[in-house]
Amino acid sequence: MHPNDLEALLAAVRAGDLSVAEGVARLRDLPFEDAGVALIDHHRSLRQGVPETILGEGKTAEQVASIVARMAARGHNVLATRLSADKGNLLAAQHPAGEYDPLARTFTLVQKPLEDLGRGPVAVVCAGTSDLPVAREAANTASLFQNRVVEIADVGVAGLHRLLAHLPALREATVIIVVAGMEGALPSVIGGLVGVPVIAVPTSTGYGAAFAGVAALLGMLNSCAGGVTVVNIDNGFGAAFAATRINRRTSP
Amino acid sequence: MHPNDLEALLAAVRAGDLSVAEGVARLRDLPFEDAGVALIDHHRSLRQGVPETILGEGKTAEQVASIVARMAARGHNVLATRLSADKGNLLAAQHPAGEYDPLARTFTLVQKPLEDLGRGPVAVVCAGTSDLPVAREAANTASLFQNRVVEIADVGVAGLHRLLAHLPALREATVIIVVAGMEGALPSVIGGLVGVPVIAVPTSTGYGAAFAGVAALLGMLNSCAGGVTVVNIDNGFGAAFAATRINRRTSP
Amino acid sequence: MHPNDLEALLAAVRAGDLSVAEGVARLRDLPFEDAGVALIDHHRSLRQGVPETILGEGKTAEQVASIVARMAARGHNVLATRLSADKGNLLAAQHPAGEYDPLARTFTLVQKPLEDLGRGPVAVVCAGTSDLPVAREAANTASLFQNRVVEIADVGVAGLHRLLAHLPALREATVIIVVAGMEGALPSVIGGLVGVPVIAVPTSTGYGAAFAGVAALLGMLNSCAGGVTVVNIDNGFGAAFAATRINRRTSP
Amino acid sequence: MHPNDLEALLAAVRAGDLSVAEGVARLRDLPFEDAGVALIDHHRSLRQGVPETILGEGKTAEQVASIVARMAARGHNVLATRLSADKGNLLAAQHPAGEYDPLARTFTLVQKPLEDLGRGPVAVVCAGTSDLPVAREAANTASLFQNRVVEIADVGVAGLHRLLAHLPALREATVIIVVAGMEGALPSVIGGLVGVPVIAVPTSTGYGAAFAGVAALLGMLNSCAGGVTVVNIDNGFGAAFAATRINRRTSP
Amino acid sequence: MHPNDLEALLAAVRAGDLSVAEGVARLRDLPFEDAGVALIDHHRSLRQGVPETILGEGKTAEQVASIVARMAARGHNVLATRLSADKGNLLAAQHPAGEYDPLARTFTLVQKPLEDLGRGPVAVVCAGTSDLPVAREAANTASLFQNRVVEIADVGVAGLHRLLAHLPALREATVIIVVAGMEGALPSVIGGLVGVPVIAVPTSTGYGAAFAGVAALLGMLNSCAGGVTVVNIDNGFGAAFAATRINRRTSP
Amino acid sequence: MHPNDLEALLAAVRAGDLSVAEGVARLRDLPFEDAGVALIDHHRSLRQGVPETILGEGKTAEQVASIVARMAARGHNVLATRLSADKGNLLAAQHPAGEYDPLARTFTLVQKPLEDLGRGPVAVVCAGTSDLPVAREAANTASLFQNRVVEIADVGVAGLHRLLAHLPALREATVIIVVAGMEGALPSVIGGLVGVPVIAVPTSTGYGAAFAGVAALLGMLNSCAGGVTVVNIDNGFGAAFAATRINRRTSP
Amino acid sequence: MHPNDLEALLAAVRAGDLSVAEGVARLRDLPFEDAGVALIDHHRSLRQGVPETILGEGKTAEQVASIVARMAARGHNVLATRLSADKGNLLAAQHPAGEYDPLARTFTLVQKPLEDLGRGPVAVVCAGTSDLPVAREAANTASLFQNRVVEIADVGVAGLHRLLAHLPALREATVIIVVAGMEGALPSVIGGLVGVPVIAVPTSTGYGAAFAGVAALLGMLNSCAGGVTVVNIDNGFGAAFAATRINRRTSP
Amino acid sequence: MHPNDLEALLAAVRAGDLSVAEGVARLRDLPFEDAGVALIDHHRSLRQGVPETILGEGKTAEQVASIVARMAARGHNVLATRLSADKGNLLAAQHPAGEYDPLARTFTLVQKPLEDLGRGPVAVVCAGTSDLPVAREAANTASLFQNRVVEIADVGVAGLHRLLAHLPALREATVIIVVAGMEGALPSVIGGLVGVPVIAVPTSTGYGAAFAGVAALLGMLNSCAGGVTVVNIDNGFGAAFAATRINRRTSP
Repeated sequence: MHPNDLEALLAAVRAGDLSVAEGVARLRDLPFEDAGVALIDHHRSLRQGVPETILGEGKTAEQVASIVARMAARGHNVLATRLSADKGNLLAAQHPAGEYDPLARTFTLVQKPLEDLGRGPVAVVCAGTSDLPVAREAANTASLFQNRVVEIADVGVAGLHRLLAHLPALREATVIIVVAGMEGALPSVIGGLVGVPVIAVPTSTGYGAAFAGVAALLGMLNSCAGGVTVVNIDNGFGAAFAATRINRRTSP
Repeated sequence: MHPNDLEALLAAVRAGDLSVAEGVARLRDLPFEDAGVALIDHHRSLRQGVPETILGEGKTAEQVASIVARMAARGHNVLATRLSADKGNLLAAQHPAGEYDPLARTFTLVQKPLEDLGRGPVAVVCAGTSDLPVAREAANTASLFQNRVVEIADVGVAGLHRLLAHLPALREATVIIVVAGMEGALPSVIGGLVGVPVIAVPTSTGYGAAFAGVAALLGMLNSCAGGVTVVNIDNGFGAAFAATRINRRTSP
Repeated sequence: MHPNDLEALLAAVRAGDLSVAEGVARLRDLPFEDAGVALIDHHRSLRQGVPETILGEGKTAEQVASIVARMAARGHNVLATRLSADKGNLLAAQHPAGEYDPLARTFTLVQKPLEDLGRGPVAVVCAGTSDLPVAREAANTASLFQNRVVEIADVGVAGLHRLLAHLPALREATVIIVVAGMEGALPSVIGGLVGVPVIAVPTSTGYGAAFAGVAALLGMLNSCAGGVTVVNIDNGFGAAFAATRINRRTSP
Repeated sequence: MHPNDLEALLAAVRAGDLSVAEGVARLRDLPFEDAGVALIDHHRSLRQGVPETILGEGKTAEQVASIVARMAARGHNVLATRLSADKGNLLAAQHPAGEYDPLARTFTLVQKPLEDLGRGPVAVVCAGTSDLPVAREAANTASLFQNRVVEIADVGVAGLHRLLAHLPALREATVIIVVAGMEGALPSVIGGLVGVPVIAVPTSTGYGAAFAGVAALLGMLNSCAGGVTVVNIDNGFGAAFAATRINRRTSP
Repeated sequence: MHPNDLEALLAAVRAGDLSVAEGVARLRDLPFEDAGVALIDHHRSLRQGVPETILGEGKTAEQVASIVARMAARGHNVLATRLSADKGNLLAAQHPAGEYDPLARTFTLVQKPLEDLGRGPVAVVCAGTSDLPVAREAANTASLFQNRVVEIADVGVAGLHRLLAHLPALREATVIIVVAGMEGALPSVIGGLVGVPVIAVPTSTGYGAAFAGVAALLGMLNSCAGGVTVVNIDNGFGAAFAATRINRRTSP
Repeated sequence: MHPNDLEALLAAVRAGDLSVAEGVARLRDLPFEDAGVALIDHHRSLRQGVPETILGEGKTAEQVASIVARMAARGHNVLATRLSADKGNLLAAQHPAGEYDPLARTFTLVQKPLEDLGRGPVAVVCAGTSDLPVAREAANTASLFQNRVVEIADVGVAGLHRLLAHLPALREATVIIVVAGMEGALPSVIGGLVGVPVIAVPTSTGYGAAFAGVAALLGMLNSCAGGVTVVNIDNGFGAAFAATRINRRTSP
Repeated sequence: MHPNDLEALLAAVRAGDLSVAEGVARLRDLPFEDAGVALIDHHRSLRQGVPETILGEGKTAEQVASIVARMAARGHNVLATRLSADKGNLLAAQHPAGEYDPLARTFTLVQKPLEDLGRGPVAVVCAGTSDLPVAREAANTASLFQNRVVEIADVGVAGLHRLLAHLPALREATVIIVVAGMEGALPSVIGGLVGVPVIAVPTSTGYGAAFAGVAALLGMLNSCAGGVTVVNIDNGFGAAFAATRINRRTSP
Repeated sequence: MHPNDLEALLAAVRAGDLSVAEGVARLRDLPFEDAGVALIDHHRSLRQGVPETILGEGKTAEQVASIVARMAARGHNVLATRLSADKGNLLAAQHPAGEYDPLARTFTLVQKPLEDLGRGPVAVVCAGTSDLPVAREAANTASLFQNRVVEIADVGVAGLHRLLAHLPALREATVIIVVAGMEGALPSVIGGLVGVPVIAVPTSTGYGAAFAGVAALLGMLNSCAGGVTVVNIDNGFGAAFAATRINRRTSP
């Protein structure tokens, strides 16, 4: 039911063409979702407070390009993730103002100025160099989602001193995203050192009994440090989205 | 928003106390769910066309008894499943008109006469004697859900002759629920012999690499017979519910 | 034993060359399967009421082409599924009247007119765009199996309003096939909104802990909505086959 | 090295009994951890801003009682979780001011007044009645950790209307803890409706292919709603701890 | 169709009451299974050449007792397996001529003399003392199935000398059943030393990553010794059945 | 210790150059394995009674060629399995008398005449066309291992009539190798129809919840037909080796 | 063949009753294992350098008592592990000189004085109090196996300061056994801090996605610290045995 | 805080510019990690006593080359592992003094003479030829880590005689690394024959139920031979690192 329909219905009630009882009956029988949809839809972008994004994986280059073009045309900021080089380069060629990051496998197009909407910085911490792509996906996403981002790399638990050197930065953050593969122990150690929310991202690095990230995932779910939450393997985007929700000054 | 509120709103529009535009605005801003909830709720029991049921497992005897008492008070037919003997006997004691089936672990209370609402009989077929509890749960559920039920037991694939002797009954059914543990091959064989819908229910019988029903579940999901669908391990209730939806003469 | 043999045997009985007792003995010792085979075989296509199909995966292009050619020669309608582009294009080149759908990875050849044999439409619902190939496989199969098909795409649970907008179409269907990856929650939501049979198809989309469809499969098997049944991961064909069995006006 | 030792060392340097170079050498060779420990330890309770807690599972009643007694003696607020009835009742008998909640299986002892330290309420949402124990553990923990808590029960995805009726409360919360078993779809639906952080807690309810919470866990990790994070199966405590970190007005 | 029916049909043909063509038609339309069933059933016990057995697990003591009583009444030899002490003792009390073996958890009742029907002895080899129950189940089964049995215990691979001391006995056997838990390496070692068929039975002994027999099962399936076949975890009965099929002098 | 050494030792004892006690000591200290090795080694080929074979997978074409060349030079019959086309063609080019079977992925070189050493034929039965490669590997192996082989293809459980038509051939076999993927139900059905040993070979065909043969493997391990044993997924070679051991007229 | 037999054989050779060639032949035909067995057996206890032990789990109290009695009678030191209280108390009652440790679930009987045979102390480190039983099993075993043992408890990675305070003791050890459940991160941290061998023991503590020690096991297998090796879940005994082999001053 | 800073602080104390109390306060407030880092870092290479190494997998050829160049420039010995041919050849081209081993997939560059630092030889034993790459990785690593290495190949448990022939070499080793795929039984057999530490390395060779090394991993974790420890699948490097720690004459 479009607003016009609602208007017609009410006009008919006012005009006496429809009794109040009939009006109630018809409104009650309204497929609620028709009214609801518009409402929710309208509220939705407000509520989430983030640009729409597109997951590049599992789509053809043409599909990705077409969706991004539509988003770009609306003047929104755009984020596409998990893009192979050919998809990324295609987007970069079509949108010279955008940027393809081959390490993070993200494409970002900033059309509206990015303002820091967060209560503080989001730290993105990464255990090893092979975890960098996921960490960078998280960092790029968090930036585009209007957070200030601090990146800290190569601070695995087998070399504690490297981690401890970054404690001040960690303690300043509002949220810490910890990206780690193999045994996934880093979030526990960091969660024990700081009091801010820690979002753990297991990565699919490693081999053998790493089981493409399962070992890290289980390690993180069983973290002995209270207050660590976990997202899917390699899901840097999701971690950044959650960090954004946590970090927003005002609830959307 | 209750119907009364809707009435008041429309009366105000009719009375001119509220302009059409204002009425539209207020209706549009309605939390759709308030209207929607009533609507859905009302339609819901019609839609499903089945009595409400209660899963006895994971609830205390007191909780189960209290919920069943409330259901019974409304005059509905009642079904409770996965009831240990103590819970079942408690219910039977409290509701002399009801019946606890210790094999199926179900409690049924028929307060409204059961009429056959199906297009034909629902056959419940069972591979071995240890699959009987699940088969009986399915049969009891299907009966209470107002289907005619035919039970066929002990027709495992290692003794084809026993199965083949029941072909006529199988071919008459509108839906066949096949309950089997171990390798779960029975649905494939039956699915190859008949053309009606086959719902496969893996059971947790067996030991070792049966993995409490996982072997049967996987076997059924990989059935080489087209048109076999599967429900959760030991879920006789769910199979009967699905069979009911399939068998209903009129869509709810 | 061929009919001729049966005839000879009976003729011998009639002629007195074989006593009744001897005839009984010989018939009883008949490898039942010889008689049985013919019988079943004959009934089989009637029973299933569907064209024979071929699973393209795991066969060479030559094997697929040879089997399809044989089927086509008999004048049947033909369906081949899970065909890579090279296999599909080969078939399309050899059978100009046929059609290869690269999204669904199906080849269909209609030689006999398709008549709607169903009690109502089969709805094929799909959560995300990456679930489209499986949904389309289901839709193409259901069409060729002589059902009327309604396709509804992109109605994931994280955007309920999109789903709710399609409620009327869902409620009109005789069967609903719900195709979803990731957490596989869509069948539960739909199963709670409608009363018709829901067949859930998990897809292998997603990454990490999606485990190539296992997460969706488990979600669907544990659906809290009664009456949802499940088929194998990515098995759009199987879902359509099951839907056909459910939807047929007359039991085959 | 205690502060006193540091003092002696510096006094020796000042007095010339130890050269600067020797002082540097000795300080450098200091097991850093001795200094560090005190420092960290001191900061630790500040940092976390939460009372110490004890996991009752895997400890004898005597062990639990002894640890709780020590904590209580320091005047702290005390939380013990996953307590069987015998352990819980023992604690309640020993600490009349404390409370054992047999549903949540928690023991809480409030010795210091609880002040609301949060930016807003923490909502604890629960899909089914068998998820209540975990939800209540989360609620009790969040309360003791000085958050305002709103509990919403029995809002599973198969009955959307029940959930939608609670949208306003959900939208007011600063953090939402969603507790669900079976297919674990509730966090996705809620995450699509609101913009605040959602912490998903899978529960071990269900049977068969629920695999004691694994199905729900996987569903939640693969949530199609952005910004959902997950904790271990049945870990209501951990979810509340994470919610506390998120909700704190000031970083600890 | 009972033999009587066949007789009537043939008599009608002979009498000319039924033409040969009609007789052929009726025979052809015979539900083959009715003829087949009798046939198969009759041949079945001959074919298998083994007494019927009953799996005690998953049945109540009463059910087991009732089935065994029926079997015993026919004068057959009877074997019941996986019997808890209470079930076993009940059977022993009811059938004084029978024997309950609490280690093997089997009940055997010999009513017909056991004759050695094998081509040679069946060796049952067992790695550790905790594998004894399964080995004994295999041995008891093989004996009742009319094989000569040689038992060799406690010959694990970590003490090769104990195994090598039994080489002559192993080489004399027609079949070797190897029962082992933990890493399940014994069948590989034995399979490398002898040329006769080796049936490997993984046991659920061990703990942790033994995963209730899965480690042993996988080890045995991956045996580097050619010609090792495997049965289900703890399935001593199945191994003995297979050994019987292999060892029979004449094919049943 | 070579025989010569033994001779020298004994000669020294006889000559009095070595006392009996010294001789005992030296013999006792003998690394037993040196004596043992020769003994075992010598007996080994006799014992196994089969040509040596080479697993082509995981080796380079050069490695395979070099090993096969060495085997061929000794005049033995040679079998190489799991050979990709390039490896197989290389071998075929180097050994014109040999044969590469691209379906089975085997290379066979017969240099000594093959004599039927079995007690009867080995039947190799296969459920679907995609199981053919494994079945053919089994058949080729069994032939080279000097068994008479009967191949029966395309007799899946969803079309029982096709299987039943082959019952006579099945009943004549000494051993039946059953190759099947998907739900792996065929061995149960065959094991229920015949009394000879059945060796089940799961194949990695199928998709989704077939888990590359795990579903079939579990189905076979849980076969409800007594006396079915199982080998590794796709291990046609191992099944044929086991069948050979079973079928040999004389124990090696 | 016992030494006596060897002696008789050599004596016969010397006496000329047996020719050298006959002697060689008889020695060569010796089932090598008979000679070998004695030899190995004799060397075995020397080689392992440890008392025999008995795994209490999976044996009845009577079986355990009988085996321990036999061991004790030989004057050996005795270790029994994984003993429930009833088994342990029975042993303690029968052997007043022995000791049952209910925490470690071990029984130890020292009959020969324990001498430190190690190159240095074995440190047994333990993450949480629920890991204590396994740590204590390791410590008791290592002590009885004649190592000096240092126990360090409650040093989980979420409170690094507690661990760092023990660095000197860790650095003095020759081997470190690290016992941890949950995410199993402790061995990585310790392996990064010290240069000595680290043996990681996952424990089955925790719940949910801890999967009874699997999470910890995987974490440890994927340790990012070089030189960490792992034993089975809860296998304190095995870790101590391995530590003993490493720590021995002289190779056995 | 650098040593210079410490010096300045102490100088200020000595000069009276800073009171002792102030000095204590500042030292106490020192971010311990700053002091600690330097300290640990300095001690680290001493402690581990091994060259730094680089895991080639998961890095681009450029990244690997750049890291190796930096290491080489410092004059260290360099080890890179898990290098594909293109990465290995690039390194070999850039560092003519280095060597790429295509079987082991390692690159080694020796710039400082290798001295045997071990208590004895490290034996690297390997079950089959397809396990050679992992064995060679272990051997190359152990050599570069300054151990004497003995390699023993092709001694699987199905041919015990080949293994037994190498017993003397095994008994001389200080540590034995056992590399095996398939059922992973070799470490158990060797662990039963010798008394030295055995490090088991499962390999991902095999197919089907080998599950890419999981079967071997589980077999090794459940070894019935005491004192076997395990590393990750295919982790030859880790095994060699652990062996180095065990074999070092002096603790680092």
